[in-house]
Amino acid sequence: MQSESPPEPNRENEPLKERLWRIIFLSDTSGAKAFDVVLLWLIAGSILVVMLETVKSVEVFHRELLKGFEWLFTILFTIEYSLRMWVVRKKRRYALSFFGIVDLLSILPTYLEIFLTGSGHLIVIRVLRLLRMFRILKMGHHMSEADFLVSALKASRSKIAVFLFAVMAIVSIEGTLMYLIEGGREGTGFTSIPQSMYWGIVTITTVGYGDIAPVTVIGKILASVMMLTGFAIIAVPTGIVGAEIFKELSPVKMDGRKCANCQHLGHDPCASFCKSCGSRLPGPTDSA
Amino acid sequence: MQSESPPEPNRENEPLKERLWRIIFLSDTSGAKAFDVVLLWLIAGSILVVMLETVKSVEVFHRELLKGFEWLFTILFTIEYSLRMWVVRKKRRYALSFFGIVDLLSILPTYLEIFLTGSGHLIVIRVLRLLRMFRILKMGHHMSEADFLVSALKASRSKIAVFLFAVMAIVSIEGTLMYLIEGGREGTGFTSIPQSMYWGIVTITTVGYGDIAPVTVIGKILASVMMLTGFAIIAVPTGIVGAEIFKELSPVKMDGRKCANCQHLGHDPCASFCKSCGSRLPGPTDSA
Amino acid sequence: MQSESPPEPNRENEPLKERLWRIIFLSDTSGAKAFDVVLLWLIAGSILVVMLETVKSVEVFHRELLKGFEWLFTILFTIEYSLRMWVVRKKRRYALSFFGIVDLLSILPTYLEIFLTGSGHLIVIRVLRLLRMFRILKMGHHMSEADFLVSALKASRSKIAVFLFAVMAIVSIEGTLMYLIEGGREGTGFTSIPQSMYWGIVTITTVGYGDIAPVTVIGKILASVMMLTGFAIIAVPTGIVGAEIFKELSPVKMDGRKCANCQHLGHDPCASFCKSCGSRLPGPTDSA
Amino acid sequence: MQSESPPEPNRENEPLKERLWRIIFLSDTSGAKAFDVVLLWLIAGSILVVMLETVKSVEVFHRELLKGFEWLFTILFTIEYSLRMWVVRKKRRYALSFFGIVDLLSILPTYLEIFLTGSGHLIVIRVLRLLRMFRILKMGHHMSEADFLVSALKASRSKIAVFLFAVMAIVSIEGTLMYLIEGGREGTGFTSIPQSMYWGIVTITTVGYGDIAPVTVIGKILASVMMLTGFAIIAVPTGIVGAEIFKELSPVKMDGRKCANCQHLGHDPCASFCKSCGSRLPGPTDSA
Repeated sequence: MQSESPPEPNRENEPLKERLWRIIFLSDTSGAKAFDVVLLWLIAGSILVVMLETVKSVEVFHRELLKGFEWLFTILFTIEYSLRMWVVRKKRRYALSFFGIVDLLSILPTYLEIFLTGSGHLIVIRVLRLLRMFRILKMGHHMSEADFLVSALKASRSKIAVFLFAVMAIVSIEGTLMYLIEGGREGTGFTSIPQSMYWGIVTITTVGYGDIAPVTVIGKILASVMMLTGFAIIAVPTGIVGAEIFKELSPVKMDGRKCANCQHLGHDPCASFCKSCGSRLPGPTDSA
Repeated sequence: MQSESPPEPNRENEPLKERLWRIIFLSDTSGAKAFDVVLLWLIAGSILVVMLETVKSVEVFHRELLKGFEWLFTILFTIEYSLRMWVVRKKRRYALSFFGIVDLLSILPTYLEIFLTGSGHLIVIRVLRLLRMFRILKMGHHMSEADFLVSALKASRSKIAVFLFAVMAIVSIEGTLMYLIEGGREGTGFTSIPQSMYWGIVTITTVGYGDIAPVTVIGKILASVMMLTGFAIIAVPTGIVGAEIFKELSPVKMDGRKCANCQHLGHDPCASFCKSCGSRLPGPTDSA
Repeated sequence: MQSESPPEPNRENEPLKERLWRIIFLSDTSGAKAFDVVLLWLIAGSILVVMLETVKSVEVFHRELLKGFEWLFTILFTIEYSLRMWVVRKKRRYALSFFGIVDLLSILPTYLEIFLTGSGHLIVIRVLRLLRMFRILKMGHHMSEADFLVSALKASRSKIAVFLFAVMAIVSIEGTLMYLIEGGREGTGFTSIPQSMYWGIVTITTVGYGDIAPVTVIGKILASVMMLTGFAIIAVPTGIVGAEIFKELSPVKMDGRKCANCQHLGHDPCASFCKSCGSRLPGPTDSA
Repeated sequence: MQSESPPEPNRENEPLKERLWRIIFLSDTSGAKAFDVVLLWLIAGSILVVMLETVKSVEVFHRELLKGFEWLFTILFTIEYSLRMWVVRKKRRYALSFFGIVDLLSILPTYLEIFLTGSGHLIVIRVLRLLRMFRILKMGHHMSEADFLVSALKASRSKIAVFLFAVMAIVSIEGTLMYLIEGGREGTGFTSIPQSMYWGIVTITTVGYGDIAPVTVIGKILASVMMLTGFAIIAVPTGIVGAEIFKELSPVKMDGRKCANCQHLGHDPCASFCKSCGSRLPGPTDSA
């Protein structure tokens, strides 16, 4: 098995296991791409079946059909899991990896349901059934276009965390004040501080269900102030993520050049001298 | 008909058909512009009539008037369609083009209604009547200012597709969890996973109708997390489209020049040398 | 009255009329600034009185007090209007200007109410009373900080118009489809196309009152598509206005230099040659 | 006590009071950091207790437990407050500072409740109890990551104030019009101008509770116009704050250099000559 290094060009003599590994885990050959597309459709189909099972009108009339499809998808995913376990070299590492566990959880529930048909296990069965919904995470195997989105969110992660903490602090104080103002009355939704905070989040994010709404004059004034505050604050994450995406999409990237004298990073592409200490920067050819 | 090439200056000797073609299909003469404006008003009027026909209080008292206007607009649009068919050279290509079909669908329903006055065709009639609403698409003939909007959305199309897919994945998982938490209770709106996903979309887009809202404590906590997540995620499309529009509106466009030496794309307009390899770039006059 | 030119420095010998004109119409002396501040507070107070008059619980118990304040404000504004008419030179031009009409409408309603105490004029009285609310526009006399906001909105005016037209077209088509799907049913809010379009606007702007909401499966799917579309489209005005404000706030303005050869406008500050035709641009000193 | 200057390196001989001051008020040693972390958790715990006390189902069954925790936190915060008062040099200045008052208010309510157990002081007790909620502000002692957020909001403060004033003016006029149109009818929520303005704020911020919604045709048209306006206006704070954050995050800062000849401000970092008058700019080293 000395020919196992991936960049090897002549694949004619590859053993079956090796070729399957290429098809299942990589996406560089036409066979591997076809496998990816087929699997994506299978996942989408299996998710649709789980969804429809929860719709009463559909479930009553097409129970057998859904059951059949469910078993079809389960068997296909079982074959896929078995193949993955067979062809992968570090079996244990795969089995304990995130996608390994997701792949296992995609097939286990259907088998477990056979043993749990007693009436006492209804909730367990429902949880198991819905666990199959997480097959959607299997799609992560086959998606690489979402990288820019992930990197933009990652870059602004710590700033969004601070922002969310600030929002929670505002919501806590506002929720407490609203509970104080509206709390004592009958027929109001502000029955406790956590409930008032839930209302605060519904309001500051501009969702506004309307299941809880202020009824007193002072409560309405406070709510108005909070909405207008939220209106200004909503601009903060937009600014953060927007700036990151703008940098991501912009064709002019900042220089990666570092000043040899003062270690300053991030120079303008047309700068010849460090803007922080004035010493000569390395030429543009050096940063390629 | 050798004078049919459009840039011909002397239009005095043009035959009627040629002159009509100019007026109907182009917008470069005062006659053609007047035709465009009249047609835009006719379309707006005909749409208004279709709308008012659906309002019961108006329809009962002004049925004859609306009927009259409807036939007036239909006859005018029929004349327009006939003229277009007469003057256009590639008749078949126009008839099967997008706007050709829209133009035909704008007149057909009114005529078809004559044959469908029986009581059994009520739904067909209603669909036909509303089909005339799509005359709004005829306006596309006469709009060119919306180009910047279309190009900004087109440029960010693939990124928005990835973003919408990510939102759907989040909504699927959240909807499943909410169905699990809230689903078993009486009087709750979370009756199935698709229903929960509908609630998830209503929530994450901050629309928040309030027809479905969580009632349990865990459900409310999960919904709060989802709203705050949506609050951060709403910044993503804003960042994407905003960055594209900013580029579109910005007077400083990035160069489309490519370095002949290292193939680096995206130079500053004031750069004379490639910032990646230092070789001379083609002059700005070459990229005009 | 040859000393009436404003930049005259010695104001000691100015007649009263001249000095009042300075105080009332300009804001460059301490007296004029004090006048502005007092007037702003009077306007705010008079608006508060109009508002409180509509609140039943307040109006019943404090009718006389509100009446008194109303007459106080009306007399003060009458004095202000008389002074303005006296000191201004082009009396007719002021009387017919926007702020001249607003100033007159701020005092007329209270006087007219004396003659309209008959029971038959109730609606006219209410309209007149509320007309005084527009005194808020008088504040426009005294606000100059909002210029950046106005200029940012003005610069993006035509683009926002195109955007709003596109939104209306989408809402028309969506509203028609929703009326088709949900319209026939009992208990649904989609009773006509205009009503469905109202729902469409409530939905696409993410306001989401919940007074009208889809109840059928297809209606919910269509509404979901519309919400997600709106989620992407909401980024468009943000991008447009955001880009304008960014340019407004940015310390680096684009050059106002115009190429003498090809009339190209909007060069990079560091460009020496026209990027469109290559001819030499005027030096930076020329554009000061 | 001549060794009290903070940058002194040898802390071995420091008296206890000095060392405690370091731990409590600074964050530069491992002991001080541990103190910060412990205090953050104590604050979070005490807030949770105050919240849970307002939830009836929890309070009824775990009253004693919550009472116990409440006293535990109060005693710990009392010790903290005493230590702070002991180690700080300018005792009076700390006691009257913002955080000094917050620290005192965090412990007082629990003690005051002992004397206010009579049935006549129920509201006072509730207010006192909830006052402890503001312990969340104590977290401000220990947070420094939120600086970028504060500075971005501060930089756009005056612009946001102008924006909020403009929104209030729009809401006043819209609210008055809606009261005029919808006010006379039965069963409508527009009972007064302030109420209509509350609805206006709920609508323009796209919160949309739905507790008040227009019912007349003209009211719905006006509300639609308002929503679409708000849709365009929501972009304004996003643009303002977004631009500030973008500048904050951007590696390329605009120059603060001012031309000595013509006072022009805001040069490109790579400019060596003033773009307005052509005279030599101070070198980049001068602006460091």
